Amino acid sequence: MDSIKLGLAGFGTVGSGLAKILDMNADRIADRLGRRIEVKSVLVRDTAKKRAFDLDPAITLTDDPSVLVNDPDIDIVVELMGGLDTARDLILDAFKAGKHVVTANKHLLAEHGLELFDAARENGVGLLFEASCAGGIPIVQTLKENLAGDEIIKMLGILNGTANYILSEMTTKQLDFQTALADAQDLGYAEADPTFDIEGFDTAHKLCVLIRMAYGMDYPLADIPIQGITSVTPMDIEFAREFGYRIKLLAHVMNVDGRLEAGVHPALVPYTYLLARVGGNYNAVRLEGNAVGPIMLHGQGAGDLPTGSAVLADVMNLARRLDSAPDNTGFCNKPLKQANILPPEQSESKYYFRFTVADRTGVMAAITQAMADHNISIAQAVQKGEAGAEGVPLVIISHETRRKDMEAMIEEIDAMDFTVEPCVKFRIL
Amino acid sequence: MDSIKLGLAGFGTVGSGLAKILDMNADRIADRLGRRIEVKSVLVRDTAKKRAFDLDPAITLTDDPSVLVNDPDIDIVVELMGGLDTARDLILDAFKAGKHVVTANKHLLAEHGLELFDAARENGVGLLFEASCAGGIPIVQTLKENLAGDEIIKMLGILNGTANYILSEMTTKQLDFQTALADAQDLGYAEADPTFDIEGFDTAHKLCVLIRMAYGMDYPLADIPIQGITSVTPMDIEFAREFGYRIKLLAHVMNVDGRLEAGVHPALVPYTYLLARVGGNYNAVRLEGNAVGPIMLHGQGAGDLPTGSAVLADVMNLARRLDSAPDNTGFCNKPLKQANILPPEQSESKYYFRFTVADRTGVMAAITQAMADHNISIAQAVQKGEAGAEGVPLVIISHETRRKDMEAMIEEIDAMDFTVEPCVKFRIL
Repeated sequence: MDSIKLGLAGFGTVGSGLAKILDMNADRIADRLGRRIEVKSVLVRDTAKKRAFDLDPAITLTDDPSVLVNDPDIDIVVELMGGLDTARDLILDAFKAGKHVVTANKHLLAEHGLELFDAARENGVGLLFEASCAGGIPIVQTLKENLAGDEIIKMLGILNGTANYILSEMTTKQLDFQTALADAQDLGYAEADPTFDIEGFDTAHKLCVLIRMAYGMDYPLADIPIQGITSVTPMDIEFAREFGYRIKLLAHVMNVDGRLEAGVHPALVPYTYLLARVGGNYNAVRLEGNAVGPIMLHGQGAGDLPTGSAVLADVMNLARRLDSAPDNTGFCNKPLKQANILPPEQSESKYYFRFTVADRTGVMAAITQAMADHNISIAQAVQKGEAGAEGVPLVIISHETRRKDMEAMIEEIDAMDFTVEPCVKFRIL
Repeated sequence: MDSIKLGLAGFGTVGSGLAKILDMNADRIADRLGRRIEVKSVLVRDTAKKRAFDLDPAITLTDDPSVLVNDPDIDIVVELMGGLDTARDLILDAFKAGKHVVTANKHLLAEHGLELFDAARENGVGLLFEASCAGGIPIVQTLKENLAGDEIIKMLGILNGTANYILSEMTTKQLDFQTALADAQDLGYAEADPTFDIEGFDTAHKLCVLIRMAYGMDYPLADIPIQGITSVTPMDIEFAREFGYRIKLLAHVMNVDGRLEAGVHPALVPYTYLLARVGGNYNAVRLEGNAVGPIMLHGQGAGDLPTGSAVLADVMNLARRLDSAPDNTGFCNKPLKQANILPPEQSESKYYFRFTVADRTGVMAAITQAMADHNISIAQAVQKGEAGAEGVPLVIISHETRRKDMEAMIEEIDAMDFTVEPCVKFRIL
């Protein structure tokens, strides 16, 4: 049989990773598929730029998207350029030309996924995106196929390797956030502009994609509360450790009596949980189905070869049935419904609060009274350290607390005259 | 569209679990599939027996396999009866009648899998078996689809929940093997005859199935060295802990310069590894692909709903394309090749040795000399405890050792006059 021909858009980390795997594992792939896969054309911004990986001279290098889209030989367009507008136009044009598309672009999927699903359906083609979430971890396929018959009660994910690396370094080496970030940048784990990683946006993009696969519903990105890791201090990590927790940047979604609650935030995870052990730049997803029970998938969430492996899985999946459109949404390609979202003020969680207060008589009484006034029940409290101009930390672990009560309580305490710095709060798993 | 109709053979734990999920998640399943799934007939040994789960009275209960096989309405036969001959005949008859089959029967697959793959291919039908390995953990599909383009360098699995439960209880509660086994039996985790679980046979059946999915090759069950957990004592668990390890019953397969080496054995796992944290009756698989890197999947390896969830995933997979045969082997349904097996005597590992010896001068010298004579290098050694009639334990941790040398050394030392009990040995990860 003829080989499958790819048009590859973007030749950065993941694109060159894919090319390496196609080369290194060519025989294995042919054994699995019964035919070979070859890259026919590569779309890049600058055709003159020197590449880290030497492309076969037979491959066309172009800066014109139409070379990929209009080539009748190309079966599948692989979009690895990132960004929004150009990638979106390329994918829509590829669909119109009857080509299947594989993408790793979580930002694009989060922002324009519904439009892309619709366009793929109208054109009868496939849109697969395993590589968009958690790199080499097969979470998209697991939700779509293996747990197709499960109701997902809850899903938790460590979905950003950069943020997890920074928090791990802060924990194991007692570094502050800025030093850990600078180290991550030196190692190439964090980009020059790390905003998407450390502010939780990248994690939210992935969560948005995974919610669709888990529930067949759209939970708009704008409705996901997002808290990044810039407010986590070595002091919080140390307090959390004393209480038996590790701090992780988590994406979560859960079914609360038929309504969904989702969010991205640093959270205290009991150190006995496997999730607390996810170190360095690894990713993990833990989920609970009403049939399968709890399962956890762990692996490398980024990098040329792990992410390339996920792209290749999608390419091979499409290659097995080029003439039929796969079920892109996992729900018979039906337009996704809107998620029934739990109003954020009704969400409940245990919390970690760190108040920074003047060291004077009555402070603990005033804070605990304010908490009681807002129906917040205290599980543990600790006050420590020397008092200085900068105040003394008072840490309180609460029982289940309604968000609305929590916010009102913080507003009240932050306005008290003994408060030196605004309260820092994290959820507890 | 018409509903998909199942003929269910066997209505024990997994069969009734599947029926419960079909009932509980009926709407979700229909949403995913665009049609409903119903059980039309159930094959049992004794139709008069009282069932824990009430079947819809519209379902035919029969003790005659031909009722399933000859019913033109039945699309998929689900074999959950276990055992070898009857299950094999049923599956072969179902294939001849043009029906797809889903099975959870790892023993049958390990013994007669090649014949079943051939028969499925000849009849152009599907044979899927996600539930045969590690219950609800999607390891079969992950190997077949997500890692389709990866070369698997190494795979390690905790594949038997009963054995893992017993070892976990021995570790956390300092129980001896017999007490932990009896507890497991009381809780229903171990069967009255626990041989398959504790002697490692069940783990070997699963390993045999997973090797085929990982490599597209057959590694005959008879060629897999198998060591169960009956020789593990609380003393070994305690020594292992002192050296920084936990003892787990592991299945392993690795690619050693193009040849495969596989085995089932209790092994010392560094306690910092996630695998060492797999507690209770959980299962886990850790594997390393040359592209994806290391990934680990963790979940419940048994139980009605988790295993039922895996069966349902296969049923839904087949239901999506009833008219075409899936790629059962993951290698274009080609007959599997024979694995090129590393001769067992050439396999290398670090080892834990526990010698039980008389407490007299010169013993340590004689043992360490015998090890040196057989090219076995010592990493750590410890002698402890009071000497008694039953001897004193001497524990040695070796560097990488060739199996042939290891066996010759043990034979020599076991024959020495100070040896009170034969040497106990476990691999070290």
